[in-house]
Amino acid sequence: MTRLWYGGDYNPDQWDLSVWKDDVELMRQAGVNLVTVGVFSWSSLEPSPGEYEFGWLDQVLDLLHAGGVSVDLATPTASPPPWFSRLHPEALPVTPDGVRLTHGSRDTYCACAPAYRSAAVGIARALVNRYDNHPALAMWHVHNEYGSVCYCSLAAERFRDWLRERYGSLDRLNTAWTTAFWSQGYADWQDIQPPRRTQYLVNPTQFLDYRRFWSDELLKAFLEQKAEIRERSSLPITTNFVFGGWVPVNHAQWASAVDIVAIDHYPSQTDLGAEEQTAFGADLARSWAGGKPWLLMEQAAGTLNDGQRLHAKEPGRMARHSLSHIARGSNGALFFQWRASRGGSEMYHSALVPHAGASSRLFREVTDLGSVLPRLGEVADSKVVAEVAVLWDVECWWAMQGTHLPSSSLDYLAAVQDAHRHFWRAGVTVDFAPPSADLSSYKLVVVPSLYLISDEAAASLAAYVEGGGQLVVGYFSGIVDPDVQVRLGGYPGAFRSLLGVRVEEFHPLPEDGVVELSSGGQGRLWSEDVEAVSAEVVDRYVGGVLDGKPAITRRQVGAGTAWYVSTSLDSETAAGIFGLSPSAVETVRRRTNSGDGDGDTTWTFLFNHGDAEVVVPADGVELISGVKVDGELSLPGGGYAVVRSP
Amino acid sequence: MTRLWYGGDYNPDQWDLSVWKDDVELMRQAGVNLVTVGVFSWSSLEPSPGEYEFGWLDQVLDLLHAGGVSVDLATPTASPPPWFSRLHPEALPVTPDGVRLTHGSRDTYCACAPAYRSAAVGIARALVNRYDNHPALAMWHVHNEYGSVCYCSLAAERFRDWLRERYGSLDRLNTAWTTAFWSQGYADWQDIQPPRRTQYLVNPTQFLDYRRFWSDELLKAFLEQKAEIRERSSLPITTNFVFGGWVPVNHAQWASAVDIVAIDHYPSQTDLGAEEQTAFGADLARSWAGGKPWLLMEQAAGTLNDGQRLHAKEPGRMARHSLSHIARGSNGALFFQWRASRGGSEMYHSALVPHAGASSRLFREVTDLGSVLPRLGEVADSKVVAEVAVLWDVECWWAMQGTHLPSSSLDYLAAVQDAHRHFWRAGVTVDFAPPSADLSSYKLVVVPSLYLISDEAAASLAAYVEGGGQLVVGYFSGIVDPDVQVRLGGYPGAFRSLLGVRVEEFHPLPEDGVVELSSGGQGRLWSEDVEAVSAEVVDRYVGGVLDGKPAITRRQVGAGTAWYVSTSLDSETAAGIFGLSPSAVETVRRRTNSGDGDGDTTWTFLFNHGDAEVVVPADGVELISGVKVDGELSLPGGGYAVVRSP
Amino acid sequence: MTRLWYGGDYNPDQWDLSVWKDDVELMRQAGVNLVTVGVFSWSSLEPSPGEYEFGWLDQVLDLLHAGGVSVDLATPTASPPPWFSRLHPEALPVTPDGVRLTHGSRDTYCACAPAYRSAAVGIARALVNRYDNHPALAMWHVHNEYGSVCYCSLAAERFRDWLRERYGSLDRLNTAWTTAFWSQGYADWQDIQPPRRTQYLVNPTQFLDYRRFWSDELLKAFLEQKAEIRERSSLPITTNFVFGGWVPVNHAQWASAVDIVAIDHYPSQTDLGAEEQTAFGADLARSWAGGKPWLLMEQAAGTLNDGQRLHAKEPGRMARHSLSHIARGSNGALFFQWRASRGGSEMYHSALVPHAGASSRLFREVTDLGSVLPRLGEVADSKVVAEVAVLWDVECWWAMQGTHLPSSSLDYLAAVQDAHRHFWRAGVTVDFAPPSADLSSYKLVVVPSLYLISDEAAASLAAYVEGGGQLVVGYFSGIVDPDVQVRLGGYPGAFRSLLGVRVEEFHPLPEDGVVELSSGGQGRLWSEDVEAVSAEVVDRYVGGVLDGKPAITRRQVGAGTAWYVSTSLDSETAAGIFGLSPSAVETVRRRTNSGDGDGDTTWTFLFNHGDAEVVVPADGVELISGVKVDGELSLPGGGYAVVRSP
Repeated sequence: MTRLWYGGDYNPDQWDLSVWKDDVELMRQAGVNLVTVGVFSWSSLEPSPGEYEFGWLDQVLDLLHAGGVSVDLATPTASPPPWFSRLHPEALPVTPDGVRLTHGSRDTYCACAPAYRSAAVGIARALVNRYDNHPALAMWHVHNEYGSVCYCSLAAERFRDWLRERYGSLDRLNTAWTTAFWSQGYADWQDIQPPRRTQYLVNPTQFLDYRRFWSDELLKAFLEQKAEIRERSSLPITTNFVFGGWVPVNHAQWASAVDIVAIDHYPSQTDLGAEEQTAFGADLARSWAGGKPWLLMEQAAGTLNDGQRLHAKEPGRMARHSLSHIARGSNGALFFQWRASRGGSEMYHSALVPHAGASSRLFREVTDLGSVLPRLGEVADSKVVAEVAVLWDVECWWAMQGTHLPSSSLDYLAAVQDAHRHFWRAGVTVDFAPPSADLSSYKLVVVPSLYLISDEAAASLAAYVEGGGQLVVGYFSGIVDPDVQVRLGGYPGAFRSLLGVRVEEFHPLPEDGVVELSSGGQGRLWSEDVEAVSAEVVDRYVGGVLDGKPAITRRQVGAGTAWYVSTSLDSETAAGIFGLSPSAVETVRRRTNSGDGDGDTTWTFLFNHGDAEVVVPADGVELISGVKVDGELSLPGGGYAVVRSP
Repeated sequence: MTRLWYGGDYNPDQWDLSVWKDDVELMRQAGVNLVTVGVFSWSSLEPSPGEYEFGWLDQVLDLLHAGGVSVDLATPTASPPPWFSRLHPEALPVTPDGVRLTHGSRDTYCACAPAYRSAAVGIARALVNRYDNHPALAMWHVHNEYGSVCYCSLAAERFRDWLRERYGSLDRLNTAWTTAFWSQGYADWQDIQPPRRTQYLVNPTQFLDYRRFWSDELLKAFLEQKAEIRERSSLPITTNFVFGGWVPVNHAQWASAVDIVAIDHYPSQTDLGAEEQTAFGADLARSWAGGKPWLLMEQAAGTLNDGQRLHAKEPGRMARHSLSHIARGSNGALFFQWRASRGGSEMYHSALVPHAGASSRLFREVTDLGSVLPRLGEVADSKVVAEVAVLWDVECWWAMQGTHLPSSSLDYLAAVQDAHRHFWRAGVTVDFAPPSADLSSYKLVVVPSLYLISDEAAASLAAYVEGGGQLVVGYFSGIVDPDVQVRLGGYPGAFRSLLGVRVEEFHPLPEDGVVELSSGGQGRLWSEDVEAVSAEVVDRYVGGVLDGKPAITRRQVGAGTAWYVSTSLDSETAAGIFGLSPSAVETVRRRTNSGDGDGDTTWTFLFNHGDAEVVVPADGVELISGVKVDGELSLPGGGYAVVRSP
Repeated sequence: MTRLWYGGDYNPDQWDLSVWKDDVELMRQAGVNLVTVGVFSWSSLEPSPGEYEFGWLDQVLDLLHAGGVSVDLATPTASPPPWFSRLHPEALPVTPDGVRLTHGSRDTYCACAPAYRSAAVGIARALVNRYDNHPALAMWHVHNEYGSVCYCSLAAERFRDWLRERYGSLDRLNTAWTTAFWSQGYADWQDIQPPRRTQYLVNPTQFLDYRRFWSDELLKAFLEQKAEIRERSSLPITTNFVFGGWVPVNHAQWASAVDIVAIDHYPSQTDLGAEEQTAFGADLARSWAGGKPWLLMEQAAGTLNDGQRLHAKEPGRMARHSLSHIARGSNGALFFQWRASRGGSEMYHSALVPHAGASSRLFREVTDLGSVLPRLGEVADSKVVAEVAVLWDVECWWAMQGTHLPSSSLDYLAAVQDAHRHFWRAGVTVDFAPPSADLSSYKLVVVPSLYLISDEAAASLAAYVEGGGQLVVGYFSGIVDPDVQVRLGGYPGAFRSLLGVRVEEFHPLPEDGVVELSSGGQGRLWSEDVEAVSAEVVDRYVGGVLDGKPAITRRQVGAGTAWYVSTSLDSETAAGIFGLSPSAVETVRRRTNSGDGDGDTTWTFLFNHGDAEVVVPADGVELISGVKVDGELSLPGGGYAVVRSP
C-alpha cells in the first residue's frame, strides 16, 4: 500500500440527495478517499421488520464511486431500530440494578440475546448479498465500538456456559473464586449470577470473570458477522476498537480476529495532554496490531471533549494529531463524521464539514491536510522503531476495577499512562507489550502496577532479565494470580525472587500526599515497607514511618538488571532515575522492513510541542515541503516535519 | 379592587377545634383577610373511597367567615390519599429508571392515569357542590404546584397521542427528531417511548417534546377541574405556579387558562440575593400575567431555604419581600402556612404563627405588616412601569436542559438571571417578555442565550429593531429551530443577518475561566470566534486563541441598533457597556391606567438595600406613615417607602 | 474470670488441613485462647439444601481443643448460601427503590422472610445438636453484625404488625405520624408501606418507626436462634454489635438479650483520632453493657480503614488500641481475622497472620501482645470509674437521620462525639448513659443535641439537677417528643423551664461558618435566638444578627445547676467553660467492686498519646513490666502502663 486513507464516517441518511452531491464534490476537494457508510443506518435500511430499503444506499455508493471515494461499508448492528426492541423486549439491556433500558439512544441491545444475534447476522447478510460486488467497496466495518454490557438472565446463561468451559467443575470455580469466604460456595451452576447489585462488596474474581466473559461473548458476536461477510466477500473486515474505562473488551486478543486493527481516539485533555494522549492511544493500537500497520478510524476534527465541554482545537492541531497517529503506524487519518449533524444527540460533535459549512477555517484545514497526505503515502505499511516497552494487560486493568483494593487511588491505567508519559516527555518512542511477549528486542521494559500476573508471564519477564534486559517493576505488581488470589509469603509475590525484595505491608499515601526520597525526588499515592533481601538500594524513603527504608532497588540478574520502584514517581524523579531529559521535540521513526536492515529507508516524524522555534539535526528530504534537508532542520513552535533518509 | 390580600395556607385538619378558634382570633389581630384551605386535605375529606367527611370543613369555613376571613378553597388533588394508590397502583408515578414510587410523601400520582384524572375531577365536584354558595369563599385554588412528571406506560400512550397531533405523520416526526442518527427511525407510533433511562445520550428533540407534552397534559388536567368548578361557581379560579428547574410547565402559556396568575416564591439565597430573586420572581409572574395584577400565593414568613439549611429572616425582611412583590404587581402577600405544623415532613417550614406561638417577634411582625397593607390598598390593580424587557422562553430553557450541549456550563436560567441582575443592581425595573411579543413600547430589549428560536420570533425581534429598538443579543442565541435543529451556515443562525456577524466555532471557557476584553472588562463561561461581517466592533477579546477577535458588536438596522455579546459579562462590564450605575435604592413605579396618561396617579416604591441612610427626591404622600413628602425623602438602611404622586 | 480473651475470627474452610495444623501451632505461639469459628461457613456446612458436611469442622474443633484454644462457635446466618436464594428468591433483600439484590456478597437476605428465619433457626439447631458437648466450646456467637435492612412486601407485613402493636388504632397512628399533612391519613392498615422511594420528603415519624421496627424484628430473629441454642447448651450466647450510621439496631436495648455484650470496632481515622474513636467505641460498649464487662469481638490487627484506603498501623498501635479497650472494660482483645484471606472481597482486610506469613513484624507484635495479656488477667470483670456521663440515645440519632431538619449540618453522632472528645482530650473518662438512667452518681452530665426526648426522660434529667447534679444541655435539644412532634411554645420545649430559657428561632450557621462569643470562644454549625427567661447569662454572641444575645446560660435548680449551650463549641471553648485542661496522658481506672470501697484494688491504665516522655505520679506495681512504682512513673512517647494500687 502506498497511500494513506483520509476521510471519515459518512451518514447520508441524515440528508437529501442535493447534499449528497455537494458532499462528493467537497470530498474530492478535500482529498478524501475513504468514507465509512451506514454505521447507524439500520432503521434507514430496514425501516420495518424484513422490509429493506437499499435504494438510497445504492445511489450513495454509486455517487461516491463516481467521485473516486472508496467505502468502508458498515453493518449497523450497534443500534437496532425501535421496532426491534418492541418485537424483542427481552433483547433490551439490563443494568446491574435490574433496570431494563429503553431505546432512544444507541447500543440498546443485549449481545447475549439470541434474537439480537440472529438479527445482526441477518442485516449483515443482506448487506453483503447486495454490495459484495460494488466497486466502491474497500473494506467492511462490522458494528461500532463493541463494549456495552448487560446483566440480564440471557447474559447469565451465557456466563454460566463460559464458566463451565473455563473451570470444568464447580469445585475448581469455588476454589478460584474463594467462595468459602462469605459463604458463596456454589453447588449448582444455576446459582451463579452476573455481578449484579448486591448487598455489599462484589466477589473480585466473579467481577473479573464477567469482564473476561463479556469480551469473549462480544468477540463471538463479531466473528458471526465476519463469517457471514467472508462467505461472499474477500475484502478486509474490521471493527473500530474504542478504549475507555467502561469497555470490557480485550483488544489485544481481538486483534487477531480482525483484518485491520482500527481504533477510535478522542483525547479528553485540552492542553499538551491531548498530544500525549494521542501518542498513548496510537502506541497502544500498534501494540494490539503486533507492530503492524493499523488504522485511525475515528477522531474529532475540530474539538477536544473534556467531558464537560467541547474545546475548539487550535489551528493546525487537527493535522498534528493526524500525523502523530500516522507517525506511530496508522495507515491514515479518519474522522467521525464527514458532515456535522443538524440534530440528534451528537449534533455538536465536530465534523470535517462544520455547521458553518465548507466556507470555514476548519474545512480549509481539512483540505490542506488532504493535500499533504498523498506526499506521505510512501510511509504506509512501514514499521515503527522503539527500544523501550511498557507492559499493558487488560485483565490486570479489569482486576483493579474491582472494589476490593487497599487504596482507592490505585489506578492501573493511570500508572501505565505515567510510565508512558515519562518517556514521551523525553521524546522517546515506546511500544506497549503484553505480559508474555518476547521482549528480547527491547533495551528497557517497564512494568507499571502489574497487580495480576500469571506464572508464565512472570517467567517470561525473568527470562528477559536473565538474557540481559533492563526491567523496571512498579509498585503493587505481582500481587495476585489470574484467579485474583494473593501470592503469599510477602509482596510482590511473583517478582519477589527476581527483584530480591520482600514487602510485608502496604503504606497507601493520603490523597495528594507525597513522600520524600533520599535522592531528592518524591513519591505519590503509594509506598511500601520494602526489605531489600538481595537487592541493592537505589533510593530510600525520608521521613514518616518508612524513614530510611528502601524505596527503589536494583538487582543484577544474569546479564540483566531488575529494578523495583515501590512508589509512584513524578516525571522529574523518574527522569532522574532513568536518565531521561525533557525534549520539546518528539521524534518518531518508521522504517521499511526489507529483511536486512542495510538498505532500509527511514522516515523521521518530528513534532515541536514547544512555542519556540527549534533546530534539529536531520538529513534527507522533508516530504511535506519536498525540500532537501542537509544537516539540520528548523521547526517553528507547534511545527512538524517528515524527513525521509535513505 | 382596593384592598390587598393578606394571609396564607391554612391547614386546620392538623389541629382541633380549640386551635381553630384561636386561629381566627389571631388572624383578626394580624389583619389576615384570605386563607387557602384544604390544599392537602383529600384524606381528611374523603378518608375512604366515596365516604366524605365535610363536617370539619363546614365548621372551619363558618368560623372563618364569622371572623371576616375570606377563603381560597383548594382542591386537594396534589396529594391523593393512601387508599387511592392501593386501589389504583397503576396511577403511582414511575421514574425514568422504571421505579414505581410509593405514597407517603406528596404528589404520588401520574397525571396521565385515567383513574387519577377521574378521581381529581370527582373530589373537585364534591367540593363545589357543597361550597359553591358558602359566603366565605373568595376564589378557587385548583391543585398545588403542578409539575411532577411520570414515565409510565399510561404516560407513553398520551405522549404518542400528543405527538400524533403535533406532527401528523411519522415522517414529519422522524425528520424533526433527526431519527436517522443512531438508527432511531420510527415506523410505528407504538415504538415511541418517553425519554426513559437509556444506554447513552437521549434524543434532544424527544426530550424537549416530552416536556412540552407534559405541560400540555397537566394543563388539560387543570382545565378539567376548572370546567367542573365553573359549572356551579362564578368565582375566580387559580392555581399556584411554582418555578424551578424540575418543573416542566409553560407558565406563560398556562396564564391564559387561570383567572388570576398566582405564584409561590421561595428565594434560595440568604444575602441580598434573596431580594434580587424576589424581584426576578415577581417580574416573571407579572410577565406571565401579561402585565396585569397577579398574586403572591406562597412565601415563607420566617426563613430562607438555601437547600441545606433554613436561615432565619432578619427583622423587617418579611415585610420588605412582601412589599417588593406588591411593588411589582402582586395584589397581596400570602404565605405557606398560617400555623407551623407540629409534625410531618415540613414541620420546620416557617409559618405566620411559629412553634413559639403568637408571643413571638415573628408574629408581631406579621401583625405589623397586617396593619400596613390596608394603607396600600389603593395600589391594587394598577400597572407597573418598565422601559426595558428581557426575553424569557421556557421552551428554550427546556431545550438547554438536554444532554447534548457543547458545554455543561451553558445555563439558560442563569443567563437570564444575569441579565436581570445587571438592571436590578442599577435600580431599573424590567419586564420579561416572550419571544414573539410586541416589544415596541420598550426602549431596550435584552435576549440572553436564546438558543432555540422560531422563525416568527426572529422576525418579530428584527422588526423591533427596524422600528427603532435597541436589541442586545447574548451568546449562544439563535442556534436551533423549534425542532432543536441547527440553523446552518454559521452561528447565530437566526440572528446572523440582523446582527451582521458570523461565528464558525464556539470556544467554551473552562470552569471559572475568564477572558479579558479590550475595554478592560471580562467575559466568563463562553466565547466565540466572531466575524464582524457587517457590524461595528465594540469590544475585542484580548489574549488567548481569540486575541483581537470581536467580542461585542453593534449594527445599525433601520432606526434601531442590534448588539451582539458573544461572552457572558460580569455585572461591572455589563454596567459599563449599557451605561448602568449601581444604586443602593431600588425604585419601582406603579401607575393607574386611565387611558390618557395625564391624570394618572403614580405610586413609587422605594427600597434601600444598603446599610446607610439615603435621601432620595420624592413628592407626594408616603402611604405607610401617612406623611406628606416635599422634595425629598429619607430612607434608613434597609428601609422602604411608598409615595403616591398625583 | 481472671484471664483476658485473645484471638479472633478463624475461617479454616478457606484453607486445607496442613494450614490448620500450622494455625494451631501459631496460635499457641501467639498466646491465642479464643477463636470465633464458622461465621461465614453456611455454604461449607450445608453445601446443598439439607445436606450437612460437619467433618471438616469436627476436625478443626478437635485440633483447636488439642492446642488449648477455646472456641466461640458461630451460626453462619449472616450469609445464606447461593442455593438458598435460588430456592427462596422472595427472601432476597429489596432496596427502597425496589431493586431486589442478588447474592454474591454477604447479608443477602430479608430478615422478615419466613423462609430465611426458619432456615436460620435450622442451621443453628444443626450446630447445637452436633457441638453442644464439644469441649473446645466457650461461647456461642449468633449471626454477624445484625443490621441489613429490607423494604420488601414481607417486611411491609411485619411492619404493619409492629405498628398495630405500638399504636393499637389507626387513629392513634394518624395522630402520631401527623398524617393530616400532605393527605397521608390511613384508613386501612394495608395502605401502610415501608418508607420506600417516594416523590419527595418522607414522613419523619414513619421513617423513625421503620428503624424502631427493624431493630425489634432483628432482635426477634436473634432471640429465635438464642432460644434454639439455649435448649441444649448453657454456654454464654452473644452476637457482635456493629456501630455505624446505616445500622438500625438499638444496641442499648439489645444488650439485655445477650449474655455478653460484644462489639466490632474499626476506627476510620488514621491520626490520633483513631485513639479517640477507640475510647468512644469502648465507652459506648460499656454503657450498653450497663457498666459490666464486655468483649471486643473484632478489630483490625494491622490497618485503619478511612473508607478510601487501608492505612498501616504504626508499630505498637495494635497493642495500644487493644489495651485501651481493656482499660474501658473489655474482657479481651479479639480480631477479624486470624489469617488473611488469599482471595475474596476482603482479601486485604488485615489479619493476625498477614499475607507475608508469621515471619513478619505484625505477627511478632501479635505474639508480644499475647505474652502481655496474661499479666493483666486480674483486671477482668473489674469496673471502670467515671464521674461524668454523656447522654446517648439511638432513637434520637435515627430521628435526626430523617430529611426534615432545619439544617443539613445537624448530626447527632457528631455532637455526641464532640462532647466525648472535649473530655477525652483532658484525659477524663466518661460513661455514656441512656436518657432515663439514674444519673445520681455522676458529678456532671452532658446532653448533646437531644432532639427527641420523652416526658419521662425529661423528668429524670430534671430530678438529677434538683438532686444536686450539674447538667449541660446542648443546642437543638428537647425539641420533639417520641412521635417526632414539636413541643410547642418555644424551644427547647422539654427543657424550657428547667433551663429557664426560651428560643423562638433557630439560626443555623453556614457550612464552615463560626460565631464569636463574648468570652473569646467560638461557636460553629448552629446558633439560636435565646431569651434568658430565668437563667443567668454565661456567654453572649458577638456580632451578626444575634449580637449581644445569650449563647450560654446557667440556672440554679434546687441543689444543682442546669446549663444551656445554644451553639456547637470547639474543644478549646468547651475546655474553658468546663474547666478542662488538655492532657497528653490518658488515664482510665478500673476498680474491684467489693461492696465497701475501702479494700478495693485499683488498676490505672496510662496512655501517653504525645511524642515526648512524660512523668506521671503513680504508686503500686506496673503489671506489664512487673516493676514496683514508687511515687512516679515515666512513660515514653506513645507508651502505656498498667499500675495496680492496693
